[in-house]
Amino acid sequence: MKLYNSQSSGNCWKVRQMLALLGIPYEKVEVDVIDRSNRKEVLGGKNPALRVPTLELDNGEHLGESNAILWYLADGTEYVPTEPLDRARVLQWMFFEQYEVEPNVAVARFWVAILGQREERAAELEGKWQGGVKALDAIEGHLAGRDWLVGDSFSIADISVYAYTHVAEEGGFDLGPFAATRAWIDRIAARPGYVPMEA
Amino acid sequence: MKLYNSQSSGNCWKVRQMLALLGIPYEKVEVDVIDRSNRKEVLGGKNPALRVPTLELDNGEHLGESNAILWYLADGTEYVPTEPLDRARVLQWMFFEQYEVEPNVAVARFWVAILGQREERAAELEGKWQGGVKALDAIEGHLAGRDWLVGDSFSIADISVYAYTHVAEEGGFDLGPFAATRAWIDRIAARPGYVPMEA
Repeated sequence: MKLYNSQSSGNCWKVRQMLALLGIPYEKVEVDVIDRSNRKEVLGGKNPALRVPTLELDNGEHLGESNAILWYLADGTEYVPTEPLDRARVLQWMFFEQYEVEPNVAVARFWVAILGQREERAAELEGKWQGGVKALDAIEGHLAGRDWLVGDSFSIADISVYAYTHVAEEGGFDLGPFAATRAWIDRIAARPGYVPMEA
Repeated sequence: MKLYNSQSSGNCWKVRQMLALLGIPYEKVEVDVIDRSNRKEVLGGKNPALRVPTLELDNGEHLGESNAILWYLADGTEYVPTEPLDRARVLQWMFFEQYEVEPNVAVARFWVAILGQREERAAELEGKWQGGVKALDAIEGHLAGRDWLVGDSFSIADISVYAYTHVAEEGGFDLGPFAATRAWIDRIAARPGYVPMEA
C-alpha cells in the first residue's frame, strides 16, 4: 500500500498507527501541509477532498478520510467491535472527532505550532479554544470511570480521538483539568505497538 | 424509538428519511435550534455533543451523530453496500459531508435562512461560501457520469450528502453551475419513499 502522508498530521498518524498494529507494510509519499499548490497534481483523481491521508490500495484504488481508512483497515479485527450498537458508537465518536475535535484542536495546533501564528490569529484562536474545550469536556465526561471510549477495549474510536487530543497543548490548550483524558492518553501511549506521532 | 429532532436540520432529516424508508415507527421530540439553553437538560447523558439528532432506541440506549445513526439503522439493508471497499467509500463520503459540507453549507444556511443574519454575518459568510463551493465542486466532479455517490445504487452516502446540498440555495449558494449535482438531487427526490425536509 502507499500512504499519501504528512508527518505532522494527526489524521495521518491514525493511519500509520493502524497499519503498524496490523503489520501491513507500506510506502510513504510525503505531502506538504503548508504549501498546498501541488495538491491537484498529487491527489487529483485519488481523493475528491485533495487531503491527506489518502491510501492507495494494492489494487490501485484510493481511499480518503482518515476515519474511513481506519474502518476499512480494522473492520474484522480486534480494533472494531462486533455488536451493532458498539459499532455505531465507534462511528459516533469518529464523527464527533471530525466535527468537534479536529476543526478546533487540530486547527489551533496548526496555527500555533506549525504556522507559528499565535499572535496574528489571536482573535480566531479564541473561538477555536472555546470549541476545543467544549469537545474536551465531552470526552472527559465520557471517560470518567471508563478505560476506553467504546465498550471494554481499545478500538479505532480511541485511535481517532487520541490523534489530536494528545497534542492539544501544542495548540495552546491546557490538559491539566482533564484528568480522565490524561490517564487515557497515557494508557494508549503505553500499549504494545504504539507508534509516536514523529515516528 | 424516540428521535430528538429539529425539523429544519438536515442532519435530522437524514434520520427521518431513513426511518421512513425502513418503515420504523418513532416518536419525535422537537428541540430548539436557536435557543440552546435547555440542551443539557434535554440531551445530557444521552449525547456527549448535546446535539440533534439523538436517537433513543427501544432498549433505552441513545445514539448521536446523524451519520452514525444512518449506519446503525441501515447496515444489513439495501442502503449500505456489502463489499468492504464500497462500505469504506460510504463512510468516506459521510466523513467528507461532516467535515466539508456541513460546516460550510449548513452553517451558511443557518445564518441566512434561519437566523436571518445575512448582513450581520457578511464577512464570515464569504468564508463559508468559499468552503461550500469547494465541497460542491468535489461532489459535482465525482457525480459527473455517475448516478449515485458509491457504486451503482442509492445508499446512506447519498442521503447524507443530499441533506444540506439540496437546500444550499437557502444559504446563498447558486446550484446553477452544478448540473450533475442538480440531476442527482432530482433523482433522489423522485425516489419512492422520499420524505421532504418539511414533512
